[in-house]
Amino acid sequence: MADALSAWRDAPAKSAIVDFVGRVTRPGSDFVPPAERVAVFDNDGTLWCEKPAYVQLDFIVRSLVQAAQEDPKLLDQALFRAAHDGDLAWFGRVVEKHYQGDDSMLREFAGAALHIAGAESTEDYAARVARFFDSARHPSLDRPYPDCGYAPMVQLLRYLEGEGFTCYIVSGGGRDFMRVVSERMYAIPPERVVGSSLGLTYDSGRVRTTTELDIFDDGPAKPARVWSRIGRRPILAAGNSNGDIEMLEYATSGPGPGLALLVEHDDADREFAYTAGAERAEQRAAADGWVVVSMARDWAEVFDD
Amino acid sequence: MADALSAWRDAPAKSAIVDFVGRVTRPGSDFVPPAERVAVFDNDGTLWCEKPAYVQLDFIVRSLVQAAQEDPKLLDQALFRAAHDGDLAWFGRVVEKHYQGDDSMLREFAGAALHIAGAESTEDYAARVARFFDSARHPSLDRPYPDCGYAPMVQLLRYLEGEGFTCYIVSGGGRDFMRVVSERMYAIPPERVVGSSLGLTYDSGRVRTTTELDIFDDGPAKPARVWSRIGRRPILAAGNSNGDIEMLEYATSGPGPGLALLVEHDDADREFAYTAGAERAEQRAAADGWVVVSMARDWAEVFDD
Repeated sequence: MADALSAWRDAPAKSAIVDFVGRVTRPGSDFVPPAERVAVFDNDGTLWCEKPAYVQLDFIVRSLVQAAQEDPKLLDQALFRAAHDGDLAWFGRVVEKHYQGDDSMLREFAGAALHIAGAESTEDYAARVARFFDSARHPSLDRPYPDCGYAPMVQLLRYLEGEGFTCYIVSGGGRDFMRVVSERMYAIPPERVVGSSLGLTYDSGRVRTTTELDIFDDGPAKPARVWSRIGRRPILAAGNSNGDIEMLEYATSGPGPGLALLVEHDDADREFAYTAGAERAEQRAAADGWVVVSMARDWAEVFDD
Repeated sequence: MADALSAWRDAPAKSAIVDFVGRVTRPGSDFVPPAERVAVFDNDGTLWCEKPAYVQLDFIVRSLVQAAQEDPKLLDQALFRAAHDGDLAWFGRVVEKHYQGDDSMLREFAGAALHIAGAESTEDYAARVARFFDSARHPSLDRPYPDCGYAPMVQLLRYLEGEGFTCYIVSGGGRDFMRVVSERMYAIPPERVVGSSLGLTYDSGRVRTTTELDIFDDGPAKPARVWSRIGRRPILAAGNSNGDIEMLEYATSGPGPGLALLVEHDDADREFAYTAGAERAEQRAAADGWVVVSMARDWAEVFDD
């Protein structure tokens, strides 16, 4: 039988994964019935590249720039100007402010997104995202965005499914943006994508988004959303940042076995090397025995070529 | 081959269902790929009996009564008193007030529910609901609650699954209450149950409910929630009340084929006969050609005996 995890080196992370899956699938005290084999994956930085900027942010910035080209008056607004100037730090502050309890930038952001979207339905939005993916390329890796998924992680999704697991994506990224990506890149269907979202409203046969933030799916919101959407505690969780800590903790706090995987970006040659935003997660991994997936050490290949 | 819909009479509703399923599963202009064959079902009054009161309300009232027996001071609160006196109308007014934009009763209700639940996790709550179902009986039908599901509708779920559909429950009932029921009675797993919910909070490995209403899953909220949870427009929807109108409309407003089923409670001999709460739905069914499922005419049996 071909190695289902051929993109992984015979190194600590692969051993830990294969050992765990063996324990929960074979008869014994750690056996978990297939229906309860739920695995959850963060997306940005865990399943695909998140540097130099989140892909969704690139999508939004390009949309803002285009809108401002068509209507230069929009440049009077700070975020259209930031997009026009390539000031991605402005957008980073949206998230910072949110965590400080101030959603004014977020609402501005949502309002602009909606200005671009007009009255489009969720289905029209998905079609627009799909068009973006048909042509957009990563700014430095010299490959289309749809080829920026991590080959070892996509293999892991398939390997787990082959072992009776059901895999979900649970990410701070926009749910309806990710759904388009997830189906194409990871063969994860839309009903198994959990993410951030603006509110939704229904009228006359169409569902549309509102300007109100419904959920920012990060940190402690992740396990809460996992329960609301799945109704089970996962037994495997993978992430790469501080925003994934609670989800990884949840998967390893049940009465039975649980595995937490923390992807470490330590491979400047093949991808990027950074720890910013993952400092607390690294500490928890060390303290609690979470499995660290070092891109440099554990992955035989990073992208599927 | 045995008739997969043997609990249905050879009458208009069965013909309409079989015709529709044939059209979307056979090659042709109405063909729908299996991944897009999503069917959504209301629960109370559509899949199981909702009279003389919602089963969940009975569960809550019994819990309130028990709590008041242990702590009589609770009878100073209107809703504990209503439960103690068997005044179910009080609880009906909770929903009425909600629709009038006044959630004060709803918050009182949620607070009481939380008082009963204490600091239990969502998993503990599920265990408590399961214990209720192990013993509780319908007040007049002389059968345990788990035997109050409609046999023709459970057959319909299995028939659709056999034809490549994925079936979801989308109900105004409490999501985490229904999940226990749905798995036992309908073999619908928890991840395919969408319903009303209090907020959720996460701390130290456990997900718990809050006193804030997160979502009341009724009316226009249903199609919005269908999108948020599934990310696809259903092609078949079944309901029985005014609160299902938008969901039925959504399923029949797509670019392709769609079927709306409206269950009509017109069988006082075998179940109940009532139209209250379904008046507008009946009008829409007549105007838009939705398929009316008359219990008296279309069902050979109502319950599985």
